[in-house]
Amino acid sequence: MTEKLIIFDTTLRDGEQSPGASMTRDEKLRIARQLERLRVDVIEAGFAASSNGDFEAVRCIADAIKDSTVCSLSRANDRDISRAAEALKGAANARIHTFIATSPLHMEKKLRMTPEEVLEQARLSVRFARNLVAGVEFSPEDGYRSDMDFLCRVLEAVITAGASTINVPDTVGYAVPELYGNFIKTLRERIPNSDKAIWSVHCHNDLGMAVANSLAGVKIGGARQVECTINGLGERAGNCSLEEVVMAVKTRKDYFGLEVGIDTHHIVAASRMVSQTTGFVVQPNKAVVGANAFAHASGIHQDGVLKARDTYEIMRAEDVGWSANKIVLGKLSGRNAFKQRLLELGAALDSETAINTAFTRFKELADRKSEIFDEDILALVSDESVTPEREHYGLVSLSQHSETGERPHASVVFTVGGQEVRGESDGNGPVDASLKAIEQHVRSGAEMVLYSVNAISGSTESQGEVTVRLQNSGRVVNGVGADPDIVVASAKAYLSALNKLQDKSDRVAAQG
Amino acid sequence: MTEKLIIFDTTLRDGEQSPGASMTRDEKLRIARQLERLRVDVIEAGFAASSNGDFEAVRCIADAIKDSTVCSLSRANDRDISRAAEALKGAANARIHTFIATSPLHMEKKLRMTPEEVLEQARLSVRFARNLVAGVEFSPEDGYRSDMDFLCRVLEAVITAGASTINVPDTVGYAVPELYGNFIKTLRERIPNSDKAIWSVHCHNDLGMAVANSLAGVKIGGARQVECTINGLGERAGNCSLEEVVMAVKTRKDYFGLEVGIDTHHIVAASRMVSQTTGFVVQPNKAVVGANAFAHASGIHQDGVLKARDTYEIMRAEDVGWSANKIVLGKLSGRNAFKQRLLELGAALDSETAINTAFTRFKELADRKSEIFDEDILALVSDESVTPEREHYGLVSLSQHSETGERPHASVVFTVGGQEVRGESDGNGPVDASLKAIEQHVRSGAEMVLYSVNAISGSTESQGEVTVRLQNSGRVVNGVGADPDIVVASAKAYLSALNKLQDKSDRVAAQG
Repeated sequence: MTEKLIIFDTTLRDGEQSPGASMTRDEKLRIARQLERLRVDVIEAGFAASSNGDFEAVRCIADAIKDSTVCSLSRANDRDISRAAEALKGAANARIHTFIATSPLHMEKKLRMTPEEVLEQARLSVRFARNLVAGVEFSPEDGYRSDMDFLCRVLEAVITAGASTINVPDTVGYAVPELYGNFIKTLRERIPNSDKAIWSVHCHNDLGMAVANSLAGVKIGGARQVECTINGLGERAGNCSLEEVVMAVKTRKDYFGLEVGIDTHHIVAASRMVSQTTGFVVQPNKAVVGANAFAHASGIHQDGVLKARDTYEIMRAEDVGWSANKIVLGKLSGRNAFKQRLLELGAALDSETAINTAFTRFKELADRKSEIFDEDILALVSDESVTPEREHYGLVSLSQHSETGERPHASVVFTVGGQEVRGESDGNGPVDASLKAIEQHVRSGAEMVLYSVNAISGSTESQGEVTVRLQNSGRVVNGVGADPDIVVASAKAYLSALNKLQDKSDRVAAQG
Repeated sequence: MTEKLIIFDTTLRDGEQSPGASMTRDEKLRIARQLERLRVDVIEAGFAASSNGDFEAVRCIADAIKDSTVCSLSRANDRDISRAAEALKGAANARIHTFIATSPLHMEKKLRMTPEEVLEQARLSVRFARNLVAGVEFSPEDGYRSDMDFLCRVLEAVITAGASTINVPDTVGYAVPELYGNFIKTLRERIPNSDKAIWSVHCHNDLGMAVANSLAGVKIGGARQVECTINGLGERAGNCSLEEVVMAVKTRKDYFGLEVGIDTHHIVAASRMVSQTTGFVVQPNKAVVGANAFAHASGIHQDGVLKARDTYEIMRAEDVGWSANKIVLGKLSGRNAFKQRLLELGAALDSETAINTAFTRFKELADRKSEIFDEDILALVSDESVTPEREHYGLVSLSQHSETGERPHASVVFTVGGQEVRGESDGNGPVDASLKAIEQHVRSGAEMVLYSVNAISGSTESQGEVTVRLQNSGRVVNGVGADPDIVVASAKAYLSALNKLQDKSDRVAAQG
């Protein structure tokens, strides 16, 4: 029987830690559902002890997800571990992932602990976690830059204490494939009880080699779990991309000889969902999920491709969820067709009320736009993801004008806690004027650190999807808004970001 | 003495072949100058025989660039090779890069030639090229999927015929590091005269491993040239990234033991220039050049980073050209300061007239905007890159209005071959209305395949930079426009794309 490679997705934990990628509980839940649909083996849902928001997100996901194992990160101390276990109570399959740094640099500068103290804390924490849940994973943070002898002692001790998965992070993205693969191999050969655990790889992409390093850990090192994120989301240059590592193992099965359980048809939908939620664009030349990744998806057929498909294609676009015909619904489509399409897109809504609201918006949109694309539907639903009852700010109407030689002007009516207010302002452009009109009343003092627009499906006839990223007192949030009018979409995005800033929370940073 | 790794940049050839990334001659020249500033060893400037436009671009670059070798791609036939040699006449150091497919699939389906015919044509072409220029590079297209025995015979024959560089492309991005490295190693061991040529790697990124594969070709295989592109631009998932491969070799010199001649301080400027010219965005989590690639560049300091920089950073942001203080010029800056900054940004303009025009625009912008960022200056200059005398269409003025419940309306005055016309239209949004107002007169019939906006430097107070990609009768062009008013920027971008569509040319497709 072919051995299986376990896919451990950490989009909601390591990915979400990326500056600007923070998500609400509902957004995380929606992505977790899509990961379950992808048949991800383990979903790292968050870092329960880092904030109340993260605790709630892990708890919700643990309660909702039944097919995938749900995991929470946790520092190596009893308080963090108890909190993780509490959040995971409802999970069908729970895992606690506990970590402590083992490299000389991290132990000395960050932890200010001696190696013996670190070893003891690792051992006790794993034992404590093992009494609370069946699945315990241990990571020596910055493991790849740790002393080999010391690392062997730590890992042997935590396996004895009950860790069933040992994950070796290349925390700073410093590894090269051959060396990283041999590093894992040496650990497995030298540690007497190494066969009692599944070995896992966790690579960062700072030198552009996260996927190759992970796969060397698998092929040379014998690891059987890969930690990865959708779109390679993650701090700095991000993590190993789920879509790349999965397609590499599938496409080169002749070399890797391993099974992966992922249903690849949902990859593109997952990529879009993560990109739309976080506002992190996927570049067109991104492998597997970039708009140009498959020649024929961009409408350009090369001579060679026409003559024989295999000449230039090693994967099929359909296999990862690119659909040839993207026009799906129109004015005359009914509620059932709409609901069915949401399901296919991995964007099913929780309640009938939510479906009704989304369907009403869909009808309004169809009145203004003849062809409705999948992207329009996803935008419409993601626009819906902040549920009305929790919205503090909401757009009522907007009027703006710009003319060469005059200063653009906007007037915006919006609600603040149910109360209608009107703001007026001029600005450098109509978008700037509209946002200033809002800010005039709200006085959030937030700094805008990102403003980006993508025309859904390419043309200006389609909806524009605007992402606004605001930073205030150390918090960074994204707001997303969609509308055929780019100025309106911008105002919606700005109000959505302000709503998120309202929801105050602090959290502890972790690295992996 | 440490051996040198030759950096061969093909942004202007393989990168430019990416659907939608086509550039004008002047844009290519500007990028070539930046590549020279980066100290790239070889610049592949185009494929001279593929179109008159490409011929002109190669000729211009060959005439202007003195420090780097200038190379043209060429199919393996006398006509193509003569054309390449002609374009390269002015070069200080010229190279012809000729190729023919050697994989069974490509020979049978694409070339419809027998292996013996292919071998003979390769040999004769290299000999022909060798009589015209000193440097001849040969690529067996789809080399990695070719029969080893046959490939050895072809490569031995072309080295005897005078090829000084042998490049082994993984045309479809199918390789994994270990196998690709050993493939090169086997070729070098089996071919008797292999020491008479420098070996080169050319990897595509379809499985996300282009950088690791290239480096395995270097480390395991003994290759001493890497073919790469800025931002990993290229067809489908793109090519090996110059910035990643260079920083990997520098950061892990302990492992690779090779020198690279690149002046890394110009990397970020080169990345921005390529991204702005092509409209291909760089995702925030892109290694080295992504906005988040260095934690502290995003304004977020982690506890660990503050305690000791090495904890999480293996490279320094300054070393690749990220500057801490990005505010550079204001209202009071003079013409010399402006000119100096252009030079530092790698955006020096050719004539005093061009500098004067750009400076006037800079002053206009400084009146409307208090802080001028590097990005503003680059946008201003790239906006300038289509010189006025060649512009068929130009924006004169624009007025637009949108209001909730009404259909957005725009009125645009623009020039068509010097003649002013006014278009009026409504649309789904103010941008849509403005572009429809233009299209009403122009009737280009072009299809818009991409519309994207980036607020330069993050906030809506800054200029918006709009990219519009139009497709018409198989041609794809990008127009870029910048303005603090997003609607005006969109109209500029649309007119710029229409100008490019005016410049008709056909070209032959090549793959590498």
